[in-house]
Amino acid sequence: MLIAEIIGTVTSTIKVKKIAGTKLKLARTINPDGEPTGKYFIVEDGVGVGNGEIVLLSDDDIAINRIVGIQQTPIKSAVVAKVDKINIYDLEE
Amino acid sequence: MLIAEIIGTVTSTIKVKKIAGTKLKLARTINPDGEPTGKYFIVEDGVGVGNGEIVLLSDDDIAINRIVGIQQTPIKSAVVAKVDKINIYDLEE
Amino acid sequence: MLIAEIIGTVTSTIKVKKIAGTKLKLARTINPDGEPTGKYFIVEDGVGVGNGEIVLLSDDDIAINRIVGIQQTPIKSAVVAKVDKINIYDLEE
Amino acid sequence: MLIAEIIGTVTSTIKVKKIAGTKLKLARTINPDGEPTGKYFIVEDGVGVGNGEIVLLSDDDIAINRIVGIQQTPIKSAVVAKVDKINIYDLEE
Amino acid sequence: MLIAEIIGTVTSTIKVKKIAGTKLKLARTINPDGEPTGKYFIVEDGVGVGNGEIVLLSDDDIAINRIVGIQQTPIKSAVVAKVDKINIYDLEE
Repeated sequence: MLIAEIIGTVTSTIKVKKIAGTKLKLARTINPDGEPTGKYFIVEDGVGVGNGEIVLLSDDDIAINRIVGIQQTPIKSAVVAKVDKINIYDLEE
Repeated sequence: MLIAEIIGTVTSTIKVKKIAGTKLKLARTINPDGEPTGKYFIVEDGVGVGNGEIVLLSDDDIAINRIVGIQQTPIKSAVVAKVDKINIYDLEE
Repeated sequence: MLIAEIIGTVTSTIKVKKIAGTKLKLARTINPDGEPTGKYFIVEDGVGVGNGEIVLLSDDDIAINRIVGIQQTPIKSAVVAKVDKINIYDLEE
Repeated sequence: MLIAEIIGTVTSTIKVKKIAGTKLKLARTINPDGEPTGKYFIVEDGVGVGNGEIVLLSDDDIAINRIVGIQQTPIKSAVVAKVDKINIYDLEE
Repeated sequence: MLIAEIIGTVTSTIKVKKIAGTKLKLARTINPDGEPTGKYFIVEDGVGVGNGEIVLLSDDDIAINRIVGIQQTPIKSAVVAKVDKINIYDLEE
């Protein structure tokens, strides 16, 4: 799973049926220090998070079908956890 | 799913049967501000979009078979939504 | 699918049975303007193309098994179309 | 599989059921010389390793279900081995 | 499949059962001219190659289970061919 930050939402009227009714959010990947790493994903929110919150993203197909509640959804990434804290080991380098 | 912009089409006469009859479009990935991020994909258009439009791309195999209407299609990416608006949270950094 | 250019072949005597008899070609990915983007793949040729030709590559497992004609082939990428023309929309930026 | 270093843990209270009870660790990929290569993954620990240890990461779905002990877990990466030593061939270049 | 060079081995005592008994090798991806492209993989050797040899790597799940001889192995990449020669087309650019 990847660490990411929720930074917005996406509005779409014209879309395939299999994503109708979903609430798509915009996530950007970050490193453990919170710095963006340059990748953006449109994701389903499986836990209920808001803008600015740090999350874990999964791209497991079967798990996402379950989270989205739609079999064979084209959605490929979902928020599966809200991160409370990232504990980084004191690396001596 | 990724955010992308439709920027053209591809013409091909010689191809495997499983993509015959498809209308392949050229997409480039963009960030939420609309800047290209350097990746290009040949995609099936599942919703009917034109050049210059912002879309969501999915690479889910089963969903794409459904969208393309061909089982076991080699097409690996499809437009699944036309984006009306990307709402970016006011990040203070 | 990705846009690529066929730039050579690979000769191999010692290999697993499941790729014996295949004709492996060397492809490099390019952008729509024909510039190499730095990735190289060893691919099966599903349509019959020559060096210097522009193609579409697919990495769909099931489709590739069909193209290669070997179930459970380790080959992961195949030429599925010869590109006649890439039509790029006149982007004003 | 990738070479990585365990550098911390992640604490999360709000998460989907399928990852409840797991002990998620933070890993960063490294090259054979131990230098970070810029990618971070949240992983399940299948062997019991501590901070600063070098490991092998796998992202095989079925293998991870077995390691995590949860079918259809959204966890996509797991520690499958603790590395004792990486033996690099003396390359003359 | 990717072109790579075998550059070493990995020693591991503590590991999950599904990789016990395997002989893991260290590979780095290279371009057709032999220059490293910055990616490293721990791979199963399906054909019997030594350090410094050029190989083709596959990451096909089912093919790798067969090569490793273990169902549901977490190993995700395997040497499937020893490369005798890469024949590059004379590109005029």
